[in-house]
Amino acid sequence: MSLKCIGIDIGGTSVKLGIFEEDGTLVKKWEIPTRKEENGKYILGDIAASIRRTAKESGLELSDFSGAGMGFPGPVLPDGHCEVCVNLGWKAGNPQQELSRLLDGMTVKSGNDANVAALGEMWQGGGKGYKNLVMVTLGTGVGGGIILNEKIWTGEQGVGGEIGHIHVMEGEKEACNCGGHGCLEQVASATGIARTARRMLAADNRPSTLRSLKNISAKNVLDAAKAGDALALESLNKSCYYLGWALATISMVLDPQAFLIGGGVSKAGTFLTDIIKRYHDELSPMATKKADIVLAKLGNDAGIYGAAKLIIG
Amino acid sequence: MSLKCIGIDIGGTSVKLGIFEEDGTLVKKWEIPTRKEENGKYILGDIAASIRRTAKESGLELSDFSGAGMGFPGPVLPDGHCEVCVNLGWKAGNPQQELSRLLDGMTVKSGNDANVAALGEMWQGGGKGYKNLVMVTLGTGVGGGIILNEKIWTGEQGVGGEIGHIHVMEGEKEACNCGGHGCLEQVASATGIARTARRMLAADNRPSTLRSLKNISAKNVLDAAKAGDALALESLNKSCYYLGWALATISMVLDPQAFLIGGGVSKAGTFLTDIIKRYHDELSPMATKKADIVLAKLGNDAGIYGAAKLIIG
Repeated sequence: MSLKCIGIDIGGTSVKLGIFEEDGTLVKKWEIPTRKEENGKYILGDIAASIRRTAKESGLELSDFSGAGMGFPGPVLPDGHCEVCVNLGWKAGNPQQELSRLLDGMTVKSGNDANVAALGEMWQGGGKGYKNLVMVTLGTGVGGGIILNEKIWTGEQGVGGEIGHIHVMEGEKEACNCGGHGCLEQVASATGIARTARRMLAADNRPSTLRSLKNISAKNVLDAAKAGDALALESLNKSCYYLGWALATISMVLDPQAFLIGGGVSKAGTFLTDIIKRYHDELSPMATKKADIVLAKLGNDAGIYGAAKLIIG
Repeated sequence: MSLKCIGIDIGGTSVKLGIFEEDGTLVKKWEIPTRKEENGKYILGDIAASIRRTAKESGLELSDFSGAGMGFPGPVLPDGHCEVCVNLGWKAGNPQQELSRLLDGMTVKSGNDANVAALGEMWQGGGKGYKNLVMVTLGTGVGGGIILNEKIWTGEQGVGGEIGHIHVMEGEKEACNCGGHGCLEQVASATGIARTARRMLAADNRPSTLRSLKNISAKNVLDAAKAGDALALESLNKSCYYLGWALATISMVLDPQAFLIGGGVSKAGTFLTDIIKRYHDELSPMATKKADIVLAKLGNDAGIYGAAKLIIG
């Protein structure tokens, strides 16, 4: 029997786990809650216990696994050291070494969750076939992950791929969570798409189906734009203009084969990516062959796929 | 005797050549004219003949060299293929294979000149000690070269590092050479710095020492700004704001250790880099440790150093 491997995606609410064949087949997947109390001290123990239990139920020994990969929401140094992981309560430590110890010395590798998800999408998702890509996750914020030559690029201090904090808007008064003003996240995340529409509605009296809604969400804006609401479309175009611009800049710097668009907002499908592509292409005139702009495919499973891929290499 | 290697930098006017020790010592350097007639068909032959002649004069055989590296002003694929090199008149071909043939099968490697110069600066210039850096050349245009893990990053189609064509200005009416509108090159190259100042002078009647000059150059703007001319400083700040912004974006994407500023404009020294750094730092709030912004050191020799480094690896 060939070796299997484990993919672990630690989120603020739950930990997703998967057992994979080395060819990328997902054999089994399950979830456990993330116990964040006492600075997250139970999280790794819970994961190790759950892996032991699930392996046993599946008739597997720990020695049947080539290793376990792990993604978590924080900056990770190449040796696995994590200075701080706010969302899990972790202080400085080496969760990868710790988990390895708890699994009798099993090989454990780790990475930032957004980067790991990008790797998963490259391996078995919307990025299959590409070696150089940039994943953009449009959710509450705008996340990013950069894959160069099939490997995660983290940069010098793990800031690489922080696409949401590319400065795009001059003169923005409101502050971003990062302390900056005019970050991409402020206009192109789900929150940003809704905010942009609300501002546009407040700025004039044009009719719009959005005016009848109490709380406008990004989905409302996207649905209204799809249905032909002129103001919603104009607002969405504005959000996509800034996103397309940021991606065009990345094309001039990195020249990737493709951008993968994921996250909740990406459920709008090619209606969304077509608009982003229009602005990207317009603002990257030097590129004779424009980068593809495609949809991510693995959804919430991207993290466990990418984590497994850390082991398979 | 340990092997030596050759660095070749082919420009539109002259070809620079150097013989290096593998430790980076430049043993000998010389230049020959670039004969561009008949689609540049004599260039590689001239180079080979000059290398043979100079080697002989120095008491060396071709077998005393581990190889020759070459930079030229065009896009180069990993196998050395060049689809077109406008400045030299070259049509599709493989100059690296051709030069190797002319030098009895000597190992020849090649790269785009801006990228090769960046590699040279990393090896023996202002970037010594850094492994991940982005070089920005402020000359007639704005060139760029990206070094990741001590290697040139060219991207999928060789567009990687085309920093001059990052879109930075909204609403710019004038077209850039690339066909775009509002490229960094239009405001931060030598030409761009002079143009920005001319526009600012035309826009109002404020006094400025620049008003007495017939043709305003970037050097005039930098000198006047250094001397305290308020309008010149305001104009230079504008150019540096857009440059700092583009570099801040690169910091969010690649998170390099340093940016190297080279080219004629960089003769203004730390007066210039201090202004660029101020905007870069302001617009990259996510980076707790800001990238260094330092001056390139090798000037016109960067190309031969980098070309030699292609061979040394």
